Amino acid sequence: MLETIQRHQAALDTAIKALHGRTFYAAFPENPAPEIYGADADRLGREAFDALRHQRFAELRQPNPEQWVGQEESPYEQQPLGVKYPFFSPETLVQRAQGSFDAWRRLKPAQRAALLTEALDGMRSRFFEIAYATMHTTGQSYLMSFQASGPHAADRALEAIAAGYEEQTRFPEETTWEKPMGKYNLTLRKTWRAVPKGVALVVGCSTFPTWNTVPGMFASLVTGNPVIIKPHPKAVLPIALVVAEVQKVLAEHGLSPDICQLAVDADDRLIAGELAENPAVKLIDYTGGSHFGEYLEGLKGKTVFTEKTGVNSIILDSCADLDKVAQNLAFSVSLYSGQMCTAPQNFFVPVAGVRVGEALVPYEEVVQKLAEAVRGLVANPKVGPHIVGALQSPATHERVQGLAFVGGRTVLAPGAVAHPQFAQARTCSPTIHEIDAARIEQFSQELFGPIMLIIKTRDTAESIHLAAHLAREFGAISCGAYTTDARVKEQIMDEMSLAGTPVSFNLTGNIYVNQNAGFSDFHVTGGNPAGNASFTNPEFVIKRFTWVGFREPV
Amino acid sequence: MLETIQRHQAALDTAIKALHGRTFYAAFPENPAPEIYGADADRLGREAFDALRHQRFAELRQPNPEQWVGQEESPYEQQPLGVKYPFFSPETLVQRAQGSFDAWRRLKPAQRAALLTEALDGMRSRFFEIAYATMHTTGQSYLMSFQASGPHAADRALEAIAAGYEEQTRFPEETTWEKPMGKYNLTLRKTWRAVPKGVALVVGCSTFPTWNTVPGMFASLVTGNPVIIKPHPKAVLPIALVVAEVQKVLAEHGLSPDICQLAVDADDRLIAGELAENPAVKLIDYTGGSHFGEYLEGLKGKTVFTEKTGVNSIILDSCADLDKVAQNLAFSVSLYSGQMCTAPQNFFVPVAGVRVGEALVPYEEVVQKLAEAVRGLVANPKVGPHIVGALQSPATHERVQGLAFVGGRTVLAPGAVAHPQFAQARTCSPTIHEIDAARIEQFSQELFGPIMLIIKTRDTAESIHLAAHLAREFGAISCGAYTTDARVKEQIMDEMSLAGTPVSFNLTGNIYVNQNAGFSDFHVTGGNPAGNASFTNPEFVIKRFTWVGFREPV
Repeated sequence: MLETIQRHQAALDTAIKALHGRTFYAAFPENPAPEIYGADADRLGREAFDALRHQRFAELRQPNPEQWVGQEESPYEQQPLGVKYPFFSPETLVQRAQGSFDAWRRLKPAQRAALLTEALDGMRSRFFEIAYATMHTTGQSYLMSFQASGPHAADRALEAIAAGYEEQTRFPEETTWEKPMGKYNLTLRKTWRAVPKGVALVVGCSTFPTWNTVPGMFASLVTGNPVIIKPHPKAVLPIALVVAEVQKVLAEHGLSPDICQLAVDADDRLIAGELAENPAVKLIDYTGGSHFGEYLEGLKGKTVFTEKTGVNSIILDSCADLDKVAQNLAFSVSLYSGQMCTAPQNFFVPVAGVRVGEALVPYEEVVQKLAEAVRGLVANPKVGPHIVGALQSPATHERVQGLAFVGGRTVLAPGAVAHPQFAQARTCSPTIHEIDAARIEQFSQELFGPIMLIIKTRDTAESIHLAAHLAREFGAISCGAYTTDARVKEQIMDEMSLAGTPVSFNLTGNIYVNQNAGFSDFHVTGGNPAGNASFTNPEFVIKRFTWVGFREPV
Repeated sequence: MLETIQRHQAALDTAIKALHGRTFYAAFPENPAPEIYGADADRLGREAFDALRHQRFAELRQPNPEQWVGQEESPYEQQPLGVKYPFFSPETLVQRAQGSFDAWRRLKPAQRAALLTEALDGMRSRFFEIAYATMHTTGQSYLMSFQASGPHAADRALEAIAAGYEEQTRFPEETTWEKPMGKYNLTLRKTWRAVPKGVALVVGCSTFPTWNTVPGMFASLVTGNPVIIKPHPKAVLPIALVVAEVQKVLAEHGLSPDICQLAVDADDRLIAGELAENPAVKLIDYTGGSHFGEYLEGLKGKTVFTEKTGVNSIILDSCADLDKVAQNLAFSVSLYSGQMCTAPQNFFVPVAGVRVGEALVPYEEVVQKLAEAVRGLVANPKVGPHIVGALQSPATHERVQGLAFVGGRTVLAPGAVAHPQFAQARTCSPTIHEIDAARIEQFSQELFGPIMLIIKTRDTAESIHLAAHLAREFGAISCGAYTTDARVKEQIMDEMSLAGTPVSFNLTGNIYVNQNAGFSDFHVTGGNPAGNASFTNPEFVIKRFTWVGFREPV
């Protein structure tokens, strides 16, 4: 164990430093290049993925399942993935987690941090396998599947490990307290323990099965809580591979794999609610719709971390080059067909238009520029299909098709996007809809998918007011703003900061509002209804344990 | 302002260092000695207090009250204090707080921390006045009134300021993020703001009007939230003096005194609930009964910090000197007549008795030793009255008198304690009651006051099990344990740590389980139903603000 700690201490220290510097840092390279990951890495990963299909997933160290279940299907093939996972009842899962608690909580934070960092090395060795599993469950493009589910997720996990380790070692394990009493000193030996809260549950989502799961998973683990990972039933395989790697490291170090279990819904029985309500479950991490998220937040006696839905805004005031802006925004709304929690939805454009340098580009011209940019991007056969990917769920497809009925004017109708490899891919090009600012009920909820709503406002002041109001009342995870006016910029920062929403200003070129960098950008602020959790600020880890002190006269 | 910051920076840095060292540290000396506080300090404080009686409290900078109210009475005199405070409706208070928000939140954390540290210097200059105000509202002895409401409270406040300042400066205000993209670097300028949550409310209790109020008050203030201080209607004056000092510093620096307002209940209208439910109130700190505390914790859209009721245990297993143990425990249960949240209530004694060295002292002898120690302490006219003080509330008196009806055996009946100075003092000597371990319903709730319950258990294992069970289910803030057996000690640490309860081992002499040192002992762990707040761990401050980031291409 000592050797394991020593092997990972430098990586951990670097990660802690990166957390506080918040400059660029990545422990896992995002480029799936042969020179980084090996000449055969991609092929081997694809073969490994293919070998898993239409099989029982036998790698988990969770014996005696009640049945074998699985309902994943590839959005690219619209065919079942065919992987079957062991099913266990919630009581069995919780009992096994409880049985593993004592050994896990008694390890030192440094020991747990080292073991978990080691598990990330295992995850790294399977990035390509995870990428194909992600592609064929979420519909993400190959590149996004690799980056988001592999290196970016592993960086977010390392960030949680580092933050958890730092917080648990921020106060001394032991000290001597010596109080001068005049004639003598009163001396106490004091010790403190960071005491984990208990069994943890992590409920995953269908679109980012590892990226949104690993922060809570590794945060709970590093703070000594055994975790039960309950993925979305349509996106199990990517995180199953990660769980298998954690279990492997646990077993290799003589620890129970029950410290980190996979919990898969039966085909006819969803188990998240039952797991969450079990009194032994003290910590819950959740990514998904607001309805279930709010139910979880309302459970008594639980510490709950959520990332729910929100409505992300773009505020267009003024810029240097409107074409570049339109191209950047077209990419943001098209990327993975708007199925990112950071994708922009509401584009606020003043009725008088957008100032570009000294000129004022009229409103309708701005709208048409955005439409042209989206059309041009998606229509490019070399680029479009690889940006939009496929729609994870048929429900998203239906939502886009049904959009015409919400009212407003259709600026750009949705259509299919032919995929060069997968003729059956479930695709949909972005649709653009214009809505009047007064019809707030039409744009105050998240419309998940490739949907751009253009909202005509009186002026930028109204745009800011609406964006901040929506964020405060309905949640927001990102905001993009374009302005060359320092006063307007400060006003946006002030109002959006009170609405707990980060703002990206004047992005053009190869950087997008959707993107969120581990070790630098806090993901979700926790300060509005889109969620109460933030990857990874100190709150995300310290709520998972309790400081308890002991003292005794020397 | 710069000068104010510089003047207090060293104090702040020392406090942050002390927070992390957790060795002995006190910024405010606890000894009310003339050589420390001045030859006339006590007399001047008493005169200042006397001058306030039967007057309107005119020092607050809160104009245009709706009426003048006040219902305090001295537990020593059983006569009204006669101080009248300005009354404002909850809407007025919240509107004024909102009006002050922008200026306060726009200050830097270092500026707020310096102003608040300066206010503590003002508080220090009035420690004796605050002491007499505390004595004649809470019934605490003179010495405890001075220490708890003066230096100990000020240390706890400084601790909150230091922790809040540290957390708000733990991440950079600004950085350059430069990502290598192969042929070029992608460069973003990133900035972050620690954004306060909004209007804060602090609801005080009747027994520790400053000590339990200032941590939340200064924690909310240092993180940029305007606060409304709503003391218990029977214990207003001590904290009114502190609020006046904060307002004075604010006014001297051109800031609105509305940043820190006093809110006093009308004589016929309690306003805590109405204030708490106001949508603009985002943060609530509360000390008091569990019923109202749980109602507050259940409010939607609020961050709530509570210290509620609990049942504190003493576990008697083995010791070196039983007489010393009995004397120590007699003091603990007598101190301020058990009206401390840390006072022990349930004393678990094994039926076979307590091992002392090689001998086993029989159960009944242990019980009688405890009774004798209490009797001897209280009967000593030079010591007893100054330890027990007076009962803050007639309800506590009635609770003690009614105790015989809960069942069990009365080992020591309560009686009056003659006070040398105040013939009318509302006093009560501790009562001792024996209850069988099986009658858990008789000892599973807090019986506030000088009440010692002796619970006869099968063995120490049952004692530990019961103490941990009660802490987990009903809350506990302290626990004392006496054992010379290392195995038993580790078992107690393990089980009580899982119940979120700190343990003091083998205290004898001049150190008591009730005592809790700022900068060293976390007060309340936050890990059981006795409360979710801990003075002052990082969680106590970071939940009061949100990190929001901004980025823009360079």
